[in-house]
Amino acid sequence: MLGLMQKQALSVSSLIDFAETHHGDVEIVSRRIEGDIHRSTWAQIASRSRQVANALDQWKIGQGARVATLAWNGYRHLELYFGVSSSGRVIHTLNPRLHPDQIVWIANHAEDEVMCFDMTFLPIAKQIHARCTTVKHWVALCDADQLPADSGIPGLISYENWVSQQATSYVWPQLDENTASCMCYTSGTTGNPKAALYSHRSTVLHAYACALPDVMCLSARDTILPVVPMFHVSAWGIPYSAAMVGAKLVFPGAALDGKSIYELLETEKVTLAAGVPTVWQMLLGHLGANGLRFNHLKRTVIGGSACPPAMIHAFNDQYGVEVLHAWGMTELSPLGTLCTLKNKHLDLPEDEKMKIRLKQGRAIFGIDFKIVDDHGKEQAHDGKAYGDLLVKGPWVIQEYFKQEGPSPLVDGWFPTGDVATVDADGYMQITDRSKDVIKSGGEWISSIDVENIAMAHPDVLMAACIGMPHPKWDERPIVVVVAKPGKTLVREEVLKFYDGKIAKWQIPDDAVFVEAIPIGATGKMLKTKLREMLSAYQLPA
Amino acid sequence: MLGLMQKQALSVSSLIDFAETHHGDVEIVSRRIEGDIHRSTWAQIASRSRQVANALDQWKIGQGARVATLAWNGYRHLELYFGVSSSGRVIHTLNPRLHPDQIVWIANHAEDEVMCFDMTFLPIAKQIHARCTTVKHWVALCDADQLPADSGIPGLISYENWVSQQATSYVWPQLDENTASCMCYTSGTTGNPKAALYSHRSTVLHAYACALPDVMCLSARDTILPVVPMFHVSAWGIPYSAAMVGAKLVFPGAALDGKSIYELLETEKVTLAAGVPTVWQMLLGHLGANGLRFNHLKRTVIGGSACPPAMIHAFNDQYGVEVLHAWGMTELSPLGTLCTLKNKHLDLPEDEKMKIRLKQGRAIFGIDFKIVDDHGKEQAHDGKAYGDLLVKGPWVIQEYFKQEGPSPLVDGWFPTGDVATVDADGYMQITDRSKDVIKSGGEWISSIDVENIAMAHPDVLMAACIGMPHPKWDERPIVVVVAKPGKTLVREEVLKFYDGKIAKWQIPDDAVFVEAIPIGATGKMLKTKLREMLSAYQLPA
Repeated sequence: MLGLMQKQALSVSSLIDFAETHHGDVEIVSRRIEGDIHRSTWAQIASRSRQVANALDQWKIGQGARVATLAWNGYRHLELYFGVSSSGRVIHTLNPRLHPDQIVWIANHAEDEVMCFDMTFLPIAKQIHARCTTVKHWVALCDADQLPADSGIPGLISYENWVSQQATSYVWPQLDENTASCMCYTSGTTGNPKAALYSHRSTVLHAYACALPDVMCLSARDTILPVVPMFHVSAWGIPYSAAMVGAKLVFPGAALDGKSIYELLETEKVTLAAGVPTVWQMLLGHLGANGLRFNHLKRTVIGGSACPPAMIHAFNDQYGVEVLHAWGMTELSPLGTLCTLKNKHLDLPEDEKMKIRLKQGRAIFGIDFKIVDDHGKEQAHDGKAYGDLLVKGPWVIQEYFKQEGPSPLVDGWFPTGDVATVDADGYMQITDRSKDVIKSGGEWISSIDVENIAMAHPDVLMAACIGMPHPKWDERPIVVVVAKPGKTLVREEVLKFYDGKIAKWQIPDDAVFVEAIPIGATGKMLKTKLREMLSAYQLPA
Repeated sequence: MLGLMQKQALSVSSLIDFAETHHGDVEIVSRRIEGDIHRSTWAQIASRSRQVANALDQWKIGQGARVATLAWNGYRHLELYFGVSSSGRVIHTLNPRLHPDQIVWIANHAEDEVMCFDMTFLPIAKQIHARCTTVKHWVALCDADQLPADSGIPGLISYENWVSQQATSYVWPQLDENTASCMCYTSGTTGNPKAALYSHRSTVLHAYACALPDVMCLSARDTILPVVPMFHVSAWGIPYSAAMVGAKLVFPGAALDGKSIYELLETEKVTLAAGVPTVWQMLLGHLGANGLRFNHLKRTVIGGSACPPAMIHAFNDQYGVEVLHAWGMTELSPLGTLCTLKNKHLDLPEDEKMKIRLKQGRAIFGIDFKIVDDHGKEQAHDGKAYGDLLVKGPWVIQEYFKQEGPSPLVDGWFPTGDVATVDADGYMQITDRSKDVIKSGGEWISSIDVENIAMAHPDVLMAACIGMPHPKWDERPIVVVVAKPGKTLVREEVLKFYDGKIAKWQIPDDAVFVEAIPIGATGKMLKTKLREMLSAYQLPA
C-alpha cells in the first residue's frame, strides 16, 4: 500500500526559489578577479539564474545538455549553478588546474555545448577552443567592456551581454528528481578522468545531510566562505546547503593566499570556512607571521585530504576555532563522514577529545560504510582492524558517465580506494589510500601516520611518505620533506623525531629533502609524480 | 538525461539500522506506567524491532496491514514504530483520549488487524474489542506476569510473551519509498476523523528537515524528551529524527504532571523537550511553586497551538531556556514552520528578538506556503496582510485515507484552515483558526490575540476568546477566563487589562468566568464545546 503524500520531486530549482522567497536580502559577497568586492543577494542570484535559463533557451541548448564552467568561486558561477540545473541542463564544472590537453579530453568526453570561463582562464580557453569540438558557445564571465577585442575565440560573448538582457521571469520545468543536474570529473592520477553525474535528488538529499548539526551545522545565522572550489565537487555542496538554510555566502575568487582569505573572514564576519589543508596552512602562516586572531570564525571544515594533527591543534588551541574534520570524494557528492563529538565525549579531557577530532568522523545518515579485507570479509569496528573502505547511499555514484567495462560497484558497494579503521563509536579513520599503503614484511605501514609526525616538527612545511622497494621487506618507507623557508633540516634530526611516536619498524629508513612536493589539481599530493622524481633513489644500505 | 547515482530508497528501516550501527549504546529511557524507570539502548530497540517483525510474520500479518497502538511514549511503542514500518506494515497510532466510540469507528475505518495497548488503556480495550471487527490480535504492552487472567478479551497476549521469544535477526524488505509507513487520524471537531497516511519517503525527508539547525537542531549531543505523545503525529517525528542523529530519548510514559516531567528533565540531563503549551503550563507551575531551576534543559519546542507570549517570556527570561515556537498539523507530518532567528536579528535588543519569537516561524525547506484572500489571491508578505494559509511539500498529504468526495487540495495546495500573516523576512504568524476568527463589523479580530493578552494577566490560568452573535456588528468577542487557584478576578479588572494593548474595537465586550475550559484529545481548547457550554449566554446590552 502506498502512502498518500504529495508527489513533489526534489529539485535544485526548489533550493533557489526557497532562498529567494525566504532569504532574498541575504548577501552573496564575491571577491572578483579584478580584485574588487561585489555584493549580491539571494534574490538577485535567483533572478539572474532565471536570466541564465532564458539565455540557454535562446541558444536552444537542449534538456540534459552540458554547460561547462572554468571558473573561480563567485556570484556568476553561482548563478550558473542554479540557472543551468534548474532549467534542466547539466552544469559541468571543469577543473582549470588540469593540463589543457586533459581539459580538452574531458570537455569532448562530456560533450559540453557551452563553455563559460573566468578571464583568468582566457589563456586556457584560447589554447583549447579549437579542439573542444562539441562546444558551440564560448562565454567570458565578465562585463561587456572587459571582453578582449582579439580573443581569437570566434563568437566569444561576455556573460553580462549574454544574460543581462534576458527576461528575469522563467517557469522552471517539472523534472523527474533523478534527472542529471551536475557533472564533475575525478582527477584520477592514472587512466582517463571519469565523471560522476549527480541528480537533483542526490543533490538535495546531500544538501539536507550536509546542513545537519552533526555535519556542517548550517543555519540562517551562518556566513560561509567556501575556499574549496566550486569547480571541484560543487564546493562540497555548500552552495546548495546555503540556499536551503538561507546562509550568507562569501566567495574568495582567485585570491586564495592567507592575507586575502583572512581579510574576507574578518570584514564579512565569516562564521564557517571550508577547504583543504594546503590552503589552511597558508592562512595559519599569515596569522602566525602577523600576530593576528579570528574575531568571527567559529568553525572550519577541513577535508580533501587528511588534516595534519598540528593543524587541528593550531585552530582549536591557539585560535579557538572548532575543526570539523571531513572525509568524502567526488563519487560521494562528496561528503561521507564528518567528525563531531557525541554526548558521551563532552566531559572528556581535552586531549581525549582531540584524539577523536583527528579521525575523519562518523557516517552521515544516508551513507553506509564498511571496511573489508582482501577477501571482502567485514572487519571489526575496534579502531584497530583496518580494511578497504566501501560505501553506499543515495548520493554515491552507481556508475561513471559513459561507463566502460564492468560496474565500479562491488555487490552494490562503491570501493573508495581508501584504507580505514572504524572504532566502536563508529568513528572512521583513513589510514591510507590503498595504493599508498606501505607493505613492509607482511605488515602495513600507514603513509599518513608517518607524514603527520613529520608535519608536527616545527621546521617542516610539508612531508610525504612513500614506499621504496626493499629486497627483504618488499617495501620500506621513506619520508620526503620540505623545510620551512629559512630553516635547515638534517636527515638524522628528522628520523630521531620519530622516536617513541611510532613503532620502531614503522620509522622511515630515510629522510629526503626536496624543494617542493608536487601537488595535483585538487590540492592533494601527487605521490605518483613524487615516485617518478625519486626514480633513481636508492634506500640506504 | 538521468543522473547516475545509486537508487537507494528512503526507508524507516535505514533509520533504525543507522542508530543501531553508529549509536548502539545510546540510551532510551522510559518511565513505565508501573512508575519505574526502564533503560534500553538504540541497539536493543533495533533488536527488539526485528523481533516485532518476526512476530508479525508469524501471525501472517500482510504487507500494508495496519498495526494499531493505544500507548504512551515508551520503549515498546518505539519498537513498534520501527518494527511495524520497517517490515512493510503500517503503524497506526490511535489517540486514547478520544471517546471509545470514536476509537472503534477509527479502528474499523483503518481496518486495523493488530491492536497493542498500554495497560492504562485496558478499560478502553475491554469496552471496544467486541466492536473492532477487523482486529485479529490484541496485545497488552506488558510482561507476561502482568497480564490479567480475566481481561475478557479473547486471545489477549502480553507483548513480552509475543515478542521476546522471536529471533532477533530479520532481513528488512526492500520497499518502494512511497510505501505507507504510518497512519494518524486528525481529531477533527466536526465530521468523521480523517487519516493522513505517511510514506517512508515523507517520514525520512521530514526527519532530515526536523533535525536541521534552524528547526529542532538535533545532534548526537542531545537528550530529547518528547512530551508530545507518540500517539499524535509521531511525536512530531522526533523518534525518527532521533534515530537519524543518534540522540538519547527520554519517554515520560503516562506521568505528564509538572513534578514528574521536571524529575526526568533533571535526572536524565535532557537538553531538548517538546510539547504543547498546556503541558508546559503545568511544568512552569511546578517550577514556580517550588523555586526550581533547569540545570540541563537548553531549548524547548512548543507547538500544537499558539504559545502564549507569557510562556515564551518565562522560559526565556526566567529560566534561560530557548523557546522554539513551531507550527504544524497532522496533514504535514507535522512540522511546517519553526521560529529561529536569522543572522540579521542577532544584534537586536532583547525585546525586538522576542517579537520575532512570538511568531510561528519560517518555512522549513521542503514546505512551501502562501496566504490568500477569499478569492485565492496571494497576500503581501508585510506582516500585516492576513489570509488563509496554504501549504505544499513532500511531507504534506495529497489526500486522506479512503478519501471521499473531491481532493482536499486547492490547485495542488493544502488549505490548513489557519489564518496567518507573513512578514518580509518570511516569518509566519497564525492569527487564528479560520473558524475561530471573530468577524466584527466587516473587520476580523484574532481570537488568539485576545487570549494572549488575558494570559499575560498574573491571575489568569487560561483564557479563550470566542465570538458571540451581535445584531449590529454580526459578532463581538468575549473572553472566557479560568482564574489561577486561590485567585479571584472580576470582570472589570480583566477588561481594563486590555487598555492600550489592543485597538478599542477589538477589546472583548465581556469577561466570563468558568471553572475549566474544555480541552480536546490533543491538548487544544475545544471552542465548539465552549460555545455549547455558553449557548444560553447573552452579550451585555
